[in-house]
Amino acid sequence: MNWFKQKRIFLDYASATPVLPEVMEAMKEYWSRDFYNPSAIYKEGLLVKDEIGKNRTRVARALGVSSKNIIFTAGGTESDNLAILGAFEKSKEIINKPHIIISAIEHPAVAGAVAEVVRRGGEMSILEVNEEGLVSVEELKKVLKKNTFLVSVALANNEIGTIQPIAKIGRHLSLFKQKQGSVYPYLHTDASQAPNYLNINMESIQADLLTLDGSKIYGPKGIGVLVARRGIDIHPIIFGGGQESSKRAGTLNPALVAGFTLALEKAQRDSEKESKRLEALRKYFIETVTKCSDKIIVNGSPKNHLPNIISISVPGFLSELILLRLDEAGIMVSVGSACSLDERESGSAVIKALGKSELSEATLRFSFGRPTTLSDIKRATKMLCQVLSEENNHKLKA
Amino acid sequence: MNWFKQKRIFLDYASATPVLPEVMEAMKEYWSRDFYNPSAIYKEGLLVKDEIGKNRTRVARALGVSSKNIIFTAGGTESDNLAILGAFEKSKEIINKPHIIISAIEHPAVAGAVAEVVRRGGEMSILEVNEEGLVSVEELKKVLKKNTFLVSVALANNEIGTIQPIAKIGRHLSLFKQKQGSVYPYLHTDASQAPNYLNINMESIQADLLTLDGSKIYGPKGIGVLVARRGIDIHPIIFGGGQESSKRAGTLNPALVAGFTLALEKAQRDSEKESKRLEALRKYFIETVTKCSDKIIVNGSPKNHLPNIISISVPGFLSELILLRLDEAGIMVSVGSACSLDERESGSAVIKALGKSELSEATLRFSFGRPTTLSDIKRATKMLCQVLSEENNHKLKA
Repeated sequence: MNWFKQKRIFLDYASATPVLPEVMEAMKEYWSRDFYNPSAIYKEGLLVKDEIGKNRTRVARALGVSSKNIIFTAGGTESDNLAILGAFEKSKEIINKPHIIISAIEHPAVAGAVAEVVRRGGEMSILEVNEEGLVSVEELKKVLKKNTFLVSVALANNEIGTIQPIAKIGRHLSLFKQKQGSVYPYLHTDASQAPNYLNINMESIQADLLTLDGSKIYGPKGIGVLVARRGIDIHPIIFGGGQESSKRAGTLNPALVAGFTLALEKAQRDSEKESKRLEALRKYFIETVTKCSDKIIVNGSPKNHLPNIISISVPGFLSELILLRLDEAGIMVSVGSACSLDERESGSAVIKALGKSELSEATLRFSFGRPTTLSDIKRATKMLCQVLSEENNHKLKA
Repeated sequence: MNWFKQKRIFLDYASATPVLPEVMEAMKEYWSRDFYNPSAIYKEGLLVKDEIGKNRTRVARALGVSSKNIIFTAGGTESDNLAILGAFEKSKEIINKPHIIISAIEHPAVAGAVAEVVRRGGEMSILEVNEEGLVSVEELKKVLKKNTFLVSVALANNEIGTIQPIAKIGRHLSLFKQKQGSVYPYLHTDASQAPNYLNINMESIQADLLTLDGSKIYGPKGIGVLVARRGIDIHPIIFGGGQESSKRAGTLNPALVAGFTLALEKAQRDSEKESKRLEALRKYFIETVTKCSDKIIVNGSPKNHLPNIISISVPGFLSELILLRLDEAGIMVSVGSACSLDERESGSAVIKALGKSELSEATLRFSFGRPTTLSDIKRATKMLCQVLSEENNHKLKA
């Protein structure tokens, strides 16, 4: 690497975050020194088990639940699968043909698990979103059925940043359940993008099941959590040893557990401050780029959005080309979820669901993070404006 | 900690191994510097993806297969579940009531997944083992059925160390398949305990599916591999993004992948040397303790065993008590698999399957590893003899 090269600017924090130094430090001792299997019963094994227990309690406290409600998994995708397939398999014991509802803009992990529910004989309905990506109780009423076992809506969308009224949905479902005299439907929310900016107390969110992922909160990849509130019963998807109250078999990595725990606490501790700081950068970004090109459309909700995600569409431009030009210019951005299925048709499914199919291949996601500064955003917006103007001239000439 | 305390002796390497320093080094850069999501398409994302690809090729080479046959998972338990439940779900497309055969001494991850197969409408049979824990083609013939989709037998047992004649089983299954004109039954082997001591080339093992686990080979916990040879088709158990050829969704931890890769290579490179070294310690251990107590019974196979595992039973002694006494004396051992189900009845299921039910609660596992020295074994055997003699005296007095 040449020392004189300008540093590159990473604006894809919604896809991955670097592990914080203090999180590295928290993980350190578990690799080679305290490497004991937490299921072993000599002193060292019990110590590691005890430390996992303490971390579990800290995670539970950050979420306002009991440590019994915390299931550690290998990441957000597994957590989503455990919530959906686990609730499905359990619900089959009392529902003949269980029915699931997910919003039109869910992450592939949710959409993929739901496809499996359908393959296994379940039914599914899509909860439509408005042009801002928002779900509503009115739309929910249209698709709720007697046999609905689960409603799954992400707390904040990973591509456009829209924050959903989960508590409202939760309250409506409570009434519905009461009227039906049933424990179903459960409410699941993938909150992977949320902890850095939003309060994730389960009491205020009013969800029954909640997904978290270490790799989005400056913790390690390869670890996640599924929160399952008291009384919420799910069947495992991985079987074997009795770990995680028999809800998820397999030896945990105590290092990743310790890293996740500290990362989650830090995310929540700094969430207000970081929200404010990044919201200002977001405002600057949008003002600057909409000034330089009147073609730019900002997707998502002007009011209910994460402070760190900006989704823009530029009609007539191919987003992958812009991404490559920005990559050359030292700016790393994304065209949407890094997790989309390889085989999937081109273009963002989220943008299509907003009723903007014609823009689905003309959309870019810029996502900010802890290291993002105003000077980064100044350079990124300048580059974006330059690329768009060059491409535009090129087009006019062609 | 008091500096003058004698160092404690860890003899439970079958449950967990410390991460080697060079493995730590191989993982280092991926936490905070090269933290990019391997699915991202800017330079840095492609670089991480490329490095995972290179590691995949190295793992494949160590196993004598193509890199397309390597599926990274979160560990041995997930690999076992993916092999068994994945093959089951796929087989249902052509077999009416799929039937699975597992040996009587399989790990809880295999037994747990099989219980789920039965819950989902499949059938199961137990392949009996002889008093050494060995399966045989003759016993297999008794349970093989037209609808058998999978036979699962661990390459080397984790409690008693018995090495199974997997290639023989594989050859018999090949003939059976030919005669049936079917792609089934597949042969799965959990080889988690094997790479440190045995050749794990898939061609010589003759299995279709093979499980590996990072935490048993001086690599990190939280990562495993399922090898699925060409033509072996399984359904995923975790759904979402198209990672791992759509066989296992979820963002991989590139650090764990890099650590696993180097650990596996080193395990295979040193396997002959370490086997020889530990076999000598094993011999010394057995000779010493059987000399000091004529009550001691060594479980497993005198001929076909891992060099690092010794299972002994002491009739009339409660193994958990001996374990605690050894723990106090600075020796860490195990009563069996660390992964047994919490709720399970007491005593080792493996020892029971050997026809020694009366010894199932009187059995201890000593397992050696890279750091184990002759002086460790001298002290451990001395301590064991002392504990047994004290307990014996205590008993006589009582």
